[in-house]
Amino acid sequence: MALNLQYEDIGKGFVQQYYGIFDDPANRANVVNFYSATESFMTFEGHQIQGAPKILEKVQSLSFQKITRVITTVDSQPTFDGGVLINVLGRLQTDEDQPHAYIQTFVLKPVGVSFFVQHDIFRLALHNV
Amino acid sequence: MALNLQYEDIGKGFVQQYYGIFDDPANRANVVNFYSATESFMTFEGHQIQGAPKILEKVQSLSFQKITRVITTVDSQPTFDGGVLINVLGRLQTDEDQPHAYIQTFVLKPVGVSFFVQHDIFRLALHNV
Repeated sequence: MALNLQYEDIGKGFVQQYYGIFDDPANRANVVNFYSATESFMTFEGHQIQGAPKILEKVQSLSFQKITRVITTVDSQPTFDGGVLINVLGRLQTDEDQPHAYIQTFVLKPVGVSFFVQHDIFRLALHNV
Repeated sequence: MALNLQYEDIGKGFVQQYYGIFDDPANRANVVNFYSATESFMTFEGHQIQGAPKILEKVQSLSFQKITRVITTVDSQPTFDGGVLINVLGRLQTDEDQPHAYIQTFVLKPVGVSFFVQHDIFRLALHNV
């Protein structure tokens, strides 16, 4: 499959759409629809899980409600199977906690005219300094 | 191709090997050997280039000599073509500059019994706060 030359718009559009759902407590569980039942990996703060059912469990286990999020940069690259690799750098604040920098990487895999999230790696940018 | 279940060791081993070369000013240009002549993308601080020759040019254009680097976390996932997705969070200091947090994502693509870097995204973690 050829490179998808819309990778930049797809990356930015996906990030907006994904966080739009994730950051709404009433809607958060619906991010599960971005993942495949079996062919999606999520690594959340070093803990790795596979498949939409486990990913939903993880999302539903998050204890915060409100998220305030500021995206700093979104870098996208086309993958050679027609998908998109997306790297997000941002800052977020959950409920009344301290704001933290974070990074999140997604790999979107094409399926028909759409995509699912094949890879998702999330880390708060906490350094021992 | 099946998932490579050694992805964790491959990710950590690659990061050590790559930075071992990159962080040695006399050896830095040899990182070009990790990239494919045509099928490698690098996004360096938002600037995207493709292919080993342009990547070598970019690496050779970097003005610093010394790098002091501390890796905070390395998160790896197996990709469905037998490769590895690697997310690095760390801190680095070039020459006598301020230390900065950074993020770097690599996708290793299998070729024979080895890998090349198909995707490389680098960002200093600078936030407008």
